[in-house]
Amino acid sequence: MSKVAIIMGSTSDMPVMQDAIDILKGFDIEVEVDIVSAHRTPDKLFDFSKKAHTRGITVIIAGAGGAAHLPGMVASLSPLPIIGVPVKSSNSIDGWDSMLSILQMPGGVPVATVALNGAKNAGILAAQIIGAHDKCVLDKILAYKEGLKIKVEEGAKTVRSGQSQ
Amino acid sequence: MSKVAIIMGSTSDMPVMQDAIDILKGFDIEVEVDIVSAHRTPDKLFDFSKKAHTRGITVIIAGAGGAAHLPGMVASLSPLPIIGVPVKSSNSIDGWDSMLSILQMPGGVPVATVALNGAKNAGILAAQIIGAHDKCVLDKILAYKEGLKIKVEEGAKTVRSGQSQ
Amino acid sequence: MSKVAIIMGSTSDMPVMQDAIDILKGFDIEVEVDIVSAHRTPDKLFDFSKKAHTRGITVIIAGAGGAAHLPGMVASLSPLPIIGVPVKSSNSIDGWDSMLSILQMPGGVPVATVALNGAKNAGILAAQIIGAHDKCVLDKILAYKEGLKIKVEEGAKTVRSGQSQ
Amino acid sequence: MSKVAIIMGSTSDMPVMQDAIDILKGFDIEVEVDIVSAHRTPDKLFDFSKKAHTRGITVIIAGAGGAAHLPGMVASLSPLPIIGVPVKSSNSIDGWDSMLSILQMPGGVPVATVALNGAKNAGILAAQIIGAHDKCVLDKILAYKEGLKIKVEEGAKTVRSGQSQ
Amino acid sequence: MSKVAIIMGSTSDMPVMQDAIDILKGFDIEVEVDIVSAHRTPDKLFDFSKKAHTRGITVIIAGAGGAAHLPGMVASLSPLPIIGVPVKSSNSIDGWDSMLSILQMPGGVPVATVALNGAKNAGILAAQIIGAHDKCVLDKILAYKEGLKIKVEEGAKTVRSGQSQ
Amino acid sequence: MSKVAIIMGSTSDMPVMQDAIDILKGFDIEVEVDIVSAHRTPDKLFDFSKKAHTRGITVIIAGAGGAAHLPGMVASLSPLPIIGVPVKSSNSIDGWDSMLSILQMPGGVPVATVALNGAKNAGILAAQIIGAHDKCVLDKILAYKEGLKIKVEEGAKTVRSGQSQ
Amino acid sequence: MSKVAIIMGSTSDMPVMQDAIDILKGFDIEVEVDIVSAHRTPDKLFDFSKKAHTRGITVIIAGAGGAAHLPGMVASLSPLPIIGVPVKSSNSIDGWDSMLSILQMPGGVPVATVALNGAKNAGILAAQIIGAHDKCVLDKILAYKEGLKIKVEEGAKTVRSGQSQ
Amino acid sequence: MSKVAIIMGSTSDMPVMQDAIDILKGFDIEVEVDIVSAHRTPDKLFDFSKKAHTRGITVIIAGAGGAAHLPGMVASLSPLPIIGVPVKSSNSIDGWDSMLSILQMPGGVPVATVALNGAKNAGILAAQIIGAHDKCVLDKILAYKEGLKIKVEEGAKTVRSGQSQ
Repeated sequence: MSKVAIIMGSTSDMPVMQDAIDILKGFDIEVEVDIVSAHRTPDKLFDFSKKAHTRGITVIIAGAGGAAHLPGMVASLSPLPIIGVPVKSSNSIDGWDSMLSILQMPGGVPVATVALNGAKNAGILAAQIIGAHDKCVLDKILAYKEGLKIKVEEGAKTVRSGQSQ
Repeated sequence: MSKVAIIMGSTSDMPVMQDAIDILKGFDIEVEVDIVSAHRTPDKLFDFSKKAHTRGITVIIAGAGGAAHLPGMVASLSPLPIIGVPVKSSNSIDGWDSMLSILQMPGGVPVATVALNGAKNAGILAAQIIGAHDKCVLDKILAYKEGLKIKVEEGAKTVRSGQSQ
Repeated sequence: MSKVAIIMGSTSDMPVMQDAIDILKGFDIEVEVDIVSAHRTPDKLFDFSKKAHTRGITVIIAGAGGAAHLPGMVASLSPLPIIGVPVKSSNSIDGWDSMLSILQMPGGVPVATVALNGAKNAGILAAQIIGAHDKCVLDKILAYKEGLKIKVEEGAKTVRSGQSQ
Repeated sequence: MSKVAIIMGSTSDMPVMQDAIDILKGFDIEVEVDIVSAHRTPDKLFDFSKKAHTRGITVIIAGAGGAAHLPGMVASLSPLPIIGVPVKSSNSIDGWDSMLSILQMPGGVPVATVALNGAKNAGILAAQIIGAHDKCVLDKILAYKEGLKIKVEEGAKTVRSGQSQ
Repeated sequence: MSKVAIIMGSTSDMPVMQDAIDILKGFDIEVEVDIVSAHRTPDKLFDFSKKAHTRGITVIIAGAGGAAHLPGMVASLSPLPIIGVPVKSSNSIDGWDSMLSILQMPGGVPVATVALNGAKNAGILAAQIIGAHDKCVLDKILAYKEGLKIKVEEGAKTVRSGQSQ
Repeated sequence: MSKVAIIMGSTSDMPVMQDAIDILKGFDIEVEVDIVSAHRTPDKLFDFSKKAHTRGITVIIAGAGGAAHLPGMVASLSPLPIIGVPVKSSNSIDGWDSMLSILQMPGGVPVATVALNGAKNAGILAAQIIGAHDKCVLDKILAYKEGLKIKVEEGAKTVRSGQSQ
Repeated sequence: MSKVAIIMGSTSDMPVMQDAIDILKGFDIEVEVDIVSAHRTPDKLFDFSKKAHTRGITVIIAGAGGAAHLPGMVASLSPLPIIGVPVKSSNSIDGWDSMLSILQMPGGVPVATVALNGAKNAGILAAQIIGAHDKCVLDKILAYKEGLKIKVEEGAKTVRSGQSQ
Repeated sequence: MSKVAIIMGSTSDMPVMQDAIDILKGFDIEVEVDIVSAHRTPDKLFDFSKKAHTRGITVIIAGAGGAAHLPGMVASLSPLPIIGVPVKSSNSIDGWDSMLSILQMPGGVPVATVALNGAKNAGILAAQIIGAHDKCVLDKILAYKEGLKIKVEEGAKTVRSGQSQ
């Protein structure tokens, strides 16, 4: 049974990161959530990252803002796929710092980066990684994509009828 | 047996994307390589993306430059995890266009983006995604990370001995 | 009789895109409006884009935010002139992502890009494209430009009289 | 019979703008070419722009670098569709100045902007504007797009055969 | 007797440009104010710019937002020193477009650019240009600079006394 | 008789700043040239700036790269009009640092900023400032602008004849 | 006994700079606070900077916004370590101008730059500089870092318990 | 006796970081140099950072490129003042990623950031930090600043004599 760890640098990242929790629960994928600060709790970062793959975690989602070192440092220490969520925090310079600090990792140590504040997509990506080997989750993703289509078409109907009046 | 598809928008992306091929072959992971242009071969894009998961592909790596729509459009059509490589092509505005066009996907359709020209990391990430469910590949990644460490330490020795003279 | 199709990636783009509808109606040019999402309704995108020129559409206006692939993908599939409107959506990084994703198209597949949130100008540009072959519409554009002049001069009078007091 | 005027701010823009000339000649569309500098020959700019639509010009392509005012000023004075080509000139700040000076036109006065140095696409867009009312040109564009597809597939074959060795 | 013309592209620029009017009036320098839009009233732009130096204007201050062509076009047509004020208008992309469109003028046609929304400094600069040849105005500028010093020192006193409590 | 002082932060700025010297000599305006570094010769900066207006200098042109404080500090100390030239030096981050350090002066202390490496325009602007009060210099500027026109038209002839072949 | 001088360009910088005062007082380090404007009180800047190291100041913290020349000019005049705080003032272009004006100092004259509005970190850095030679302050910093860890872990507990419900 | 540790993420950073070594040796300050990669040798990073202050290190200079996490992670683990040097490495996006990853540290964990590739200034800053408590080093810095002045004045003489010919 796969499990996704969702960590973030500060409790202030929770409103953004909640989207990842919600979408994964919607796919019936088990999650564990914790605050791990690269800069303020480096020992916890080390301990968490080195052990995650030994205790049933399959994917790690890490969100952070500003000079966001959390996702990259977890990637340094863990062999698992790491998904990074750049958070547009209050001390950020329009999100560019978070984005570049997570995305521009050196050769050898990748972080799978999603859009600024894109925790929802981090959750879906984690599900897709699990779905790559789990037919049941893959089917849920196919159904989810079908649902996106239907929701767009509902909006489209409203727009078309508004225009034809 | 997992297989990774590596596609790119143009043959001119090959020098960058070769790194992904090389690293995956180094992990003994099967790859298939093709040119698929979102803007010039849209039918091929549709056909490729819709069928990939039905014919044994586990992960798709897509590289593109400029207004890079290939990774996002594959992600639109396939339930698999898609890794996007922003390529700093000659017509690019310093790489910012490729990077933002791939990274900033809307909620519902993620692309796992790596660094500008980061095809090597795209390959490692694909291996990590496979390794999340394949103990043998996970062990290869752990060994690869150990190798990074050793190579750095060799450089460190040279630097330290240079200083002590 | 020319007809302009106005499509957008999401109903949330409507407040911006309404300007294109209004200006074209003011020029008595027929419009049809629909929601077509490149990432959530790719089949609709294909169907719409491939057929538009066969059913009386002369120009297509496409608006989208973030990693905005809609205008470029329509341009990939349709031989018609495509006008792209970068929308500064809530998930956008200050509009730069929308702008670059639409503007920086590769050689062979142009998108006529207008300013960020510039749906009004997209409408005028569509009218100018029609006016290039339709004397009656051309005259309306000349009149519209005359109207801009008059409106500026009215403001100028207020400013000058305010200063002379 | 439609005719496209291609103007640019300086003879140094010719190497970039030649692509627009070539592609239009390839579509058998008549072109006229001239140097018109917004900042050094403003009277010529006025005269050219005000009369273009009265002497058989259907579309105007204007290329300029740095604080690129040429496309916008032509758009101010002519009712025709104006296509702007941002040129990455030697005095430009990485092309951002050219791009923003052309793209960000105020409501009322659009410029159809293409990619940085995208003169080829400016030519194709001009052809598409003519093709919107000229079945013969539309067919040429459809054929051109088919040609793009074939060329990509040729590259794809080489790449695939290189991998299978 | 020197006179400064203050023009702007739109009445919406007035709240920003008022600072230039106020500071010049404070220096007892005569100003005239008008709305001149490069894109909507190009004939007025030409007429104004060509004649300004023949009717007693010494310096022209021009403010505009977005793709701000007004200052550069006035500079194209007038031999006078032109001061450009980039305005952060609502349709601007964070002010970068206004700033670069005004600042990055080609060799031969300068615009003296001040900070974003820096109309106050445009007024002071106009006074300094007049003061370069008018001892009475130069003395007022020296006095103004003395006043800045005194005002800072007043604030400093408050801060220091706040700290010593 | 007016005189322009041209100063720069380093001898490495000379190749860029030479353009200002050349253009002013072409207008028969007296120049004096010196190296004044805000960061390495602050006392010289103070002395130079405080005295310039007392010894016949009318305008000061100051060029600097990186965190370019020279123009702004001269403006802080002198009542004269100060023209700032952002230099794209080797240690600069693509010229953005020089440009913003010179342009974004606070209210009260303007610097007339020209384009990146725009020393030629700095020279012309200095001449225009002198010309605002000196009919003879004004006439030279009008002649210079006429010369620009002629040179463009010569290029235009070559381009047109090249096309008609 | 070490003492830290905290200066800023304007009283409007006080709300940001207060964080530096508070954190240093928390470490029982003596501070003096003053307003010193590089552009409006240059003489005070010179006097302050040249004498600081002769009257017991060990570190200087300087905050400024826009074209922020204060930290660099103090560094030009004082041999002490200077910490620069880029302030995102109202006249700033999203803080980029302050940041680059302070950070990009030429070789020979460093400014220790902290994050945008990062006055708190400026205070801690000043304490660390003192702590490098003062065991008692070093111990306080070690304790402060321990406190950061505890505070994060408290937040982590709340998050974990919220998830387990 | 103070000692400065100079570390960097990769041997490829050596050409940039050598400047820090040279300047400190010029001040007769002891240095030790090592390669410590945050992403490839995280254990060495931990060990180095936690012990540095216990074995006579007074200041740490850390240089890194791309998503540069080394300086920030050392700052997380050590109570010493940490100086960060953003390196414009080949995989960097024009240096912006290195710069923002180092500069934008969260409240509580400062990094004293210098200019892009500014290793020389990092060395001087380290000397100034030592000089804050060591009169002998402070005097060397005062002499160094005097030397800068003299070198500028030599260049100034050449420039002035070149002009007077």
